[in-house]
Amino acid sequence: MTAIAEIDATVVAEPAPAPAAAPEAEAPPRDILIICYSGELEKTWATMILATTGAAMGAKVRVFLTFWGLQTFVKDSKRITGTNVMQKMMSGMQRPGISHRKLSKMNFLGMGPWMMRKLAKQYNVASPKELLEVAQAMGVEFMPCQMTMDMFGLKREDMIDGLGEPVGAATVIALLQGGDAPLFI
Amino acid sequence: MTAIAEIDATVVAEPAPAPAAAPEAEAPPRDILIICYSGELEKTWATMILATTGAAMGAKVRVFLTFWGLQTFVKDSKRITGTNVMQKMMSGMQRPGISHRKLSKMNFLGMGPWMMRKLAKQYNVASPKELLEVAQAMGVEFMPCQMTMDMFGLKREDMIDGLGEPVGAATVIALLQGGDAPLFI
Amino acid sequence: MTAIAEIDATVVAEPAPAPAAAPEAEAPPRDILIICYSGELEKTWATMILATTGAAMGAKVRVFLTFWGLQTFVKDSKRITGTNVMQKMMSGMQRPGISHRKLSKMNFLGMGPWMMRKLAKQYNVASPKELLEVAQAMGVEFMPCQMTMDMFGLKREDMIDGLGEPVGAATVIALLQGGDAPLFI
Repeated sequence: MTAIAEIDATVVAEPAPAPAAAPEAEAPPRDILIICYSGELEKTWATMILATTGAAMGAKVRVFLTFWGLQTFVKDSKRITGTNVMQKMMSGMQRPGISHRKLSKMNFLGMGPWMMRKLAKQYNVASPKELLEVAQAMGVEFMPCQMTMDMFGLKREDMIDGLGEPVGAATVIALLQGGDAPLFI
Repeated sequence: MTAIAEIDATVVAEPAPAPAAAPEAEAPPRDILIICYSGELEKTWATMILATTGAAMGAKVRVFLTFWGLQTFVKDSKRITGTNVMQKMMSGMQRPGISHRKLSKMNFLGMGPWMMRKLAKQYNVASPKELLEVAQAMGVEFMPCQMTMDMFGLKREDMIDGLGEPVGAATVIALLQGGDAPLFI
Repeated sequence: MTAIAEIDATVVAEPAPAPAAAPEAEAPPRDILIICYSGELEKTWATMILATTGAAMGAKVRVFLTFWGLQTFVKDSKRITGTNVMQKMMSGMQRPGISHRKLSKMNFLGMGPWMMRKLAKQYNVASPKELLEVAQAMGVEFMPCQMTMDMFGLKREDMIDGLGEPVGAATVIALLQGGDAPLFI
């Protein structure tokens, strides 16, 4: 069973949303804007589950990657990033990449994230990495924050494939003004 | 003085919102969707204050309970939850229930939360548990996340009374698309 | 180069938002409501960058200051705030003021925030304090939370100049119902 099939199955298996939740007849459904700010495992998961579910339901989903949230989208194979000593130290203190996310609490030298990933597998919840692949395949747009890339010395080749052009806060503001439903995660 | 009367008094005592904040004449007031993701004491408080104030003002408020936020809605009397060893360990490491929330910082072996609760009492701010009862009495809808229940091995009888049916991310997405004002807390 | 000029330069230098982000022809651009809940350095930065960028783009931006987020707007010169022993202890445990924000992680006895501030300077990102001055000059409205002021024993003279009248959750709810784009940071 592919990861996409799994997601579809999850979406389909869910109870239907309450009628009260249906978009108003006259208003078009809103696009969704996730500001992915945090680099924690659980929040990465929340972002990916909402993004893939949204895309599966036909919503336009954009994810703005900023601060710690951008670290998640560095290639898993990268160990040290940045062009100066401070940037290298910061990446060294906290390993980037989606497969190296830590829980916000209960890390216990890695036991917490390990248990969480194991429980997820047992209950057929896809990993953040699988969900990311699904999201990209389904057209979720990932927009890296230019300022964060500059501050951490991240280069395009440090990042996973398939991200959009780096953008800034002005893009976020325009989407907010235009009526996107925003989530700061 | 009952808890509900206290809330009403709080709401009434507040300065009126600025005129600029009034709903546009033609647009109906938006429903409010709180994604209650965090299990920390202060964030539980923020969720409950916004939910009860919204309900007191006639807004439709829905609260989606997910990840650590769902732990808050386990019965206070439950000590260990889950059906397998890992789930039991995770609940053991962090006691569930609304009366056992911790601050995100300054815990100092429980002194921080104790001081915060004492200050709140002194200034007539209702406790999260009181606010929860008020919210339920006022028709705030609490929707547990099915996936979180599965991952933590939580059963309906582990949870407090009055919660709605477990739902999934699709319900959240439909509400976002339909124009609810979302807060990820 | 003044701080305001720097912000303008930043905004102008950004790639233009995608056309899909443009406000719908018929709907007026939404106001932006930031609920500034967290007192961490990075989140203060995120709040200030979004607020100043929004204001530079002509958006009406309101920032509701609550819980730890309100501590950021205590005068930098204040060391201990509050009127009773517990309030004084809480301020003593965590120094208020925008120049004393700490990172959410990697503090390492202050080295993390120091490096972050240094990197920001190197890449011409204004400090939170500079951004705050710009935001105030540009008409961003800062609204302190009355309940938080009461609980922490904060008085108007403890706070920086230029804040609005303290308001409560009812103001936030009215703005949400009225269609503001909300960010809980």
